[in-house]
Amino acid sequence: MKMKTIDSVKKKNVLRKIFSKKTLNRRLPITKWITESYKLSTFIQDLLAGITVGATAVAQGIAFAMVADLSPEYGLYSLITGGFIYTLFGNCRNMSVGPTAILSALTAKFVRGLSSDFAVLATFLAGLVQLTLGVFQLGFLVEFISGPVITGFITGAVLQVNCGQLKTLFGMSGDAGNTFVEAIENLYRNYNTLNIWDTVLGVVTMLILLLLKKLGDGCSRNDSSIRKIRWFACLARNTIVVVIGIVVAFICYLIWGSGSELTIIGEIKGGMPSFQLPAFSTTVGNQTYDFKQMLETLGPQSIVLPLISLLEVVVIAKAFTPDSNFDTTQEILAVGLCNFLGSFLGSMPTTGSFSRSAILKSTGAQTPLAGVFVSLIIILSLSVLMSLFYFIPKCVLAALIILSVASLLHTEEMISMWKTSKKEFFVMFVTVIVCCTVGLEYGVIVGVVLDMLFILFKSARPRINESRMKINGRDVLVVALPETVSYCSAEYIRKTILRATVNLNINSFIIIDGTNTLSVDTTVAKNIMDAFTDTYENHFQIVFLNFNPDIVKMMLELNFRQKSKFVNGMTVEKLIENSPGNV
Amino acid sequence: MKMKTIDSVKKKNVLRKIFSKKTLNRRLPITKWITESYKLSTFIQDLLAGITVGATAVAQGIAFAMVADLSPEYGLYSLITGGFIYTLFGNCRNMSVGPTAILSALTAKFVRGLSSDFAVLATFLAGLVQLTLGVFQLGFLVEFISGPVITGFITGAVLQVNCGQLKTLFGMSGDAGNTFVEAIENLYRNYNTLNIWDTVLGVVTMLILLLLKKLGDGCSRNDSSIRKIRWFACLARNTIVVVIGIVVAFICYLIWGSGSELTIIGEIKGGMPSFQLPAFSTTVGNQTYDFKQMLETLGPQSIVLPLISLLEVVVIAKAFTPDSNFDTTQEILAVGLCNFLGSFLGSMPTTGSFSRSAILKSTGAQTPLAGVFVSLIIILSLSVLMSLFYFIPKCVLAALIILSVASLLHTEEMISMWKTSKKEFFVMFVTVIVCCTVGLEYGVIVGVVLDMLFILFKSARPRINESRMKINGRDVLVVALPETVSYCSAEYIRKTILRATVNLNINSFIIIDGTNTLSVDTTVAKNIMDAFTDTYENHFQIVFLNFNPDIVKMMLELNFRQKSKFVNGMTVEKLIENSPGNV
Repeated sequence: MKMKTIDSVKKKNVLRKIFSKKTLNRRLPITKWITESYKLSTFIQDLLAGITVGATAVAQGIAFAMVADLSPEYGLYSLITGGFIYTLFGNCRNMSVGPTAILSALTAKFVRGLSSDFAVLATFLAGLVQLTLGVFQLGFLVEFISGPVITGFITGAVLQVNCGQLKTLFGMSGDAGNTFVEAIENLYRNYNTLNIWDTVLGVVTMLILLLLKKLGDGCSRNDSSIRKIRWFACLARNTIVVVIGIVVAFICYLIWGSGSELTIIGEIKGGMPSFQLPAFSTTVGNQTYDFKQMLETLGPQSIVLPLISLLEVVVIAKAFTPDSNFDTTQEILAVGLCNFLGSFLGSMPTTGSFSRSAILKSTGAQTPLAGVFVSLIIILSLSVLMSLFYFIPKCVLAALIILSVASLLHTEEMISMWKTSKKEFFVMFVTVIVCCTVGLEYGVIVGVVLDMLFILFKSARPRINESRMKINGRDVLVVALPETVSYCSAEYIRKTILRATVNLNINSFIIIDGTNTLSVDTTVAKNIMDAFTDTYENHFQIVFLNFNPDIVKMMLELNFRQKSKFVNGMTVEKLIENSPGNV
Repeated sequence: MKMKTIDSVKKKNVLRKIFSKKTLNRRLPITKWITESYKLSTFIQDLLAGITVGATAVAQGIAFAMVADLSPEYGLYSLITGGFIYTLFGNCRNMSVGPTAILSALTAKFVRGLSSDFAVLATFLAGLVQLTLGVFQLGFLVEFISGPVITGFITGAVLQVNCGQLKTLFGMSGDAGNTFVEAIENLYRNYNTLNIWDTVLGVVTMLILLLLKKLGDGCSRNDSSIRKIRWFACLARNTIVVVIGIVVAFICYLIWGSGSELTIIGEIKGGMPSFQLPAFSTTVGNQTYDFKQMLETLGPQSIVLPLISLLEVVVIAKAFTPDSNFDTTQEILAVGLCNFLGSFLGSMPTTGSFSRSAILKSTGAQTPLAGVFVSLIIILSLSVLMSLFYFIPKCVLAALIILSVASLLHTEEMISMWKTSKKEFFVMFVTVIVCCTVGLEYGVIVGVVLDMLFILFKSARPRINESRMKINGRDVLVVALPETVSYCSAEYIRKTILRATVNLNINSFIIIDGTNTLSVDTTVAKNIMDAFTDTYENHFQIVFLNFNPDIVKMMLELNFRQKSKFVNGMTVEKLIENSPGNV
């Protein structure tokens, strides 16, 4: 009776905790910031920032769809959900969730030669995987992707995306390829299909972009009017070149009609996407793929892609949150939901975008609500501006992609890696090579596995400190075991001890020092005990010093006779002092 | 000119080292023991031991071929090469190389439903893998198979082999199955096909074997005549029951002719196998397998099998070499050659046999030459005794296998594992379950991966010691980093430091103690530096204490401004003493 009461009280407490205001604020952060400090001035700042980023987002959306080899509307679809969902669930006020060049490059492989259904399914799966990681607090798994692997992967991705876009910049025919090597091969094979119009406009676009970027250097929102315009022109440079591009293409159209040489985007499907389940089976050419076959086709990508997506989100949250003090799990859940729900609107995989987040910050966005305005701009474009986008020259988008992606490349980081750690440089290098030749996802996998092997080998060959001394004419050997002793170092430890004792006189004193040792597993314990009981019991005096009680219990369990050999609570010096001079 | 001389002297020295007597003795150990201490008395002891083991080996060879679902002669072929090759290259005088129950169980899968060609190819590949591991000194890889995984694998193998043999013991029809679960299923489905003759003879054989074993308890080679006979009867018990079985089957044949109910071995292909390359392509039924397809069919087995084979060799070498002081690489090369060359004689995969090695020891074998006599006995049997073996009842072999394999099961080890380490018991348990349901090789793989994950997680969550004190009214926080700091613990360390500093007063003194730290990678270094430079620089006084020069160099490379923050050669206490009371 009493038990039941206690139980029901406990249950009530748990329920109260789950439905408390604190939990609500934590899991639905909008409930906190919108009630606590939202004012009209905040709204206006968010609105202006949202509109500025929205204009850039339209250009980026169409461009990243091009990187993924999808038709342009998919890039825009991908920008709708992010704004709304992240505003509800996200914490970081400058985060802009949507497609990125890196994720588009990962997606391209399944669109090229297959169909857009694979891209949408990848988004759905990414969402599921991310939600699972979030719910089970497994976000720390991304910590197993080390700095060198990330640098290597990004380098590989930049090389692949940019070589792929060179093709479009030069208006060449052929395929962008699924790897850097394939992209290079394609450029080489099709160099004679170069379109001079595209090339000229593309290169001019790049020059304008670089110029506008230079123009804004050192200027900010709070400067005087001219400098403020320079700052804004720099910020809106992507939109500016796209508008220029449209005007140029339209003039060409007016002069030459549809015979214009400039390669343009063409028809885009306008209007909102319909809300529906992603396709779980699809037909490409004559071949029908059921769900299982689609999963097999996506392969390791279905794990690598959501992890990379999380990695980008975490990096951005770290960079844009004061004190880097944010709730990783909540960010993972927010992005997971963006992808999961996004897939119902035909979104390609999304994550936080560094470039758009930076613009949000510099235009002074105050809350995640700015994202909603970005989404509204996208919806507006889809509804009314599609006929205008018809004239966007592809080479302008390529120029835009090449420059924004190139900024991800950090050669100084590689150089400092070479200087500080040849091992890490090696991991980075292998990752780049595999990314460029086999595929981006395999590069990440190989890099991670390589890193893990290094950890394993390190724990297989720990540092064991030996010291020798002579006390009262007796040889004393002290062998200090490391902090963690794993099974894979068992043989090594046994051999090290054997080697150390080779030249000892009979009747020497051997001290195995476990002061620093936190854990030992049975394989090692057995090996150490074996080495001593079998070989040395009759020759030497052996003491196991300062092993913690759990380890002692385990070692005794494995060999009952040795209890007297364990000594605790002494330093090596004291033990030797107190031991009988002769046995 | 001078350079060239030095070079050629160096070359000469290298050549001299390679072709020195020491290297010869090391890589061809027979050249040492046969020239140094071989006498007639040694020869006679080796001869007697070899003959005794030879008789057992014949029975075992046929029995293990039955376990692998191969025809009996393959088991005998597998015993020929081992004796000769190991005698030339091996160091351990009691090692008997040949087929074992465990390896036969691993092989069975490819023979059942396929063909013997797969078994021979598996031997060839095992030899190649082992020679590669030996030449590149990669034998330590077997150290990554932990005690719990070995125990789990052996348990799974024993369950599978013995349940498979129960079918034969009871003379039931059906298939032995590729896993324990399949074997149990088969027993259940075919229980009504039980043959009473086989069952009775099989059970009686088991009783005789147990009795003979009991009889020899405590007796040895050096006892008086009656006890010596008891010792020998115990040793030769396998041969004895096979002989009894042949007699019984022959009597049945005399009484009932070929209508006898007893299931016997039947025709065995006598004579020596021909020396030829293993088949690199084969046809099973209508399907032709080329080399690539054969490899794909063998799958992970082609890695797991040679490693298990090495594991058995190392365990035996350890057990039978005084001081456990043997050359692992040489043993690996010796067994690798046995398999590689054995495959040319149609051998199934071989390794050291614990039971035969134990008999060699107790019959007093002095050198590896005893193995040659074992091989000669096998050749003799193949030449002249095959018509006799025709009558070996299968149930007798099953009884023999069941008892010898059951002795590999160490339940007390599992109990002590449960008591000493729940984690290791868990690994063992998972290994057993996967071995019994999916397959032995997968059990090993899952177990090894599980162990590795534990190591990785341990290095992702190292112990970080924090201590707080108050000196001159100032808060002091000391954070001691662990021995090894890997990238995967970067986030964890950053968060731990952040948490530790939450309640500190402004102007506190933070000491990051790297006295024990051996290595840090750039990911971690960056994280630590970031945490401090971004967040705390203005609030606290920070010192990095006793980091080794390499780490300091790396950290400075990542953040140049901080050189003054590194202090070396002091204890924490001294540092605090010397620091200015107020800043």
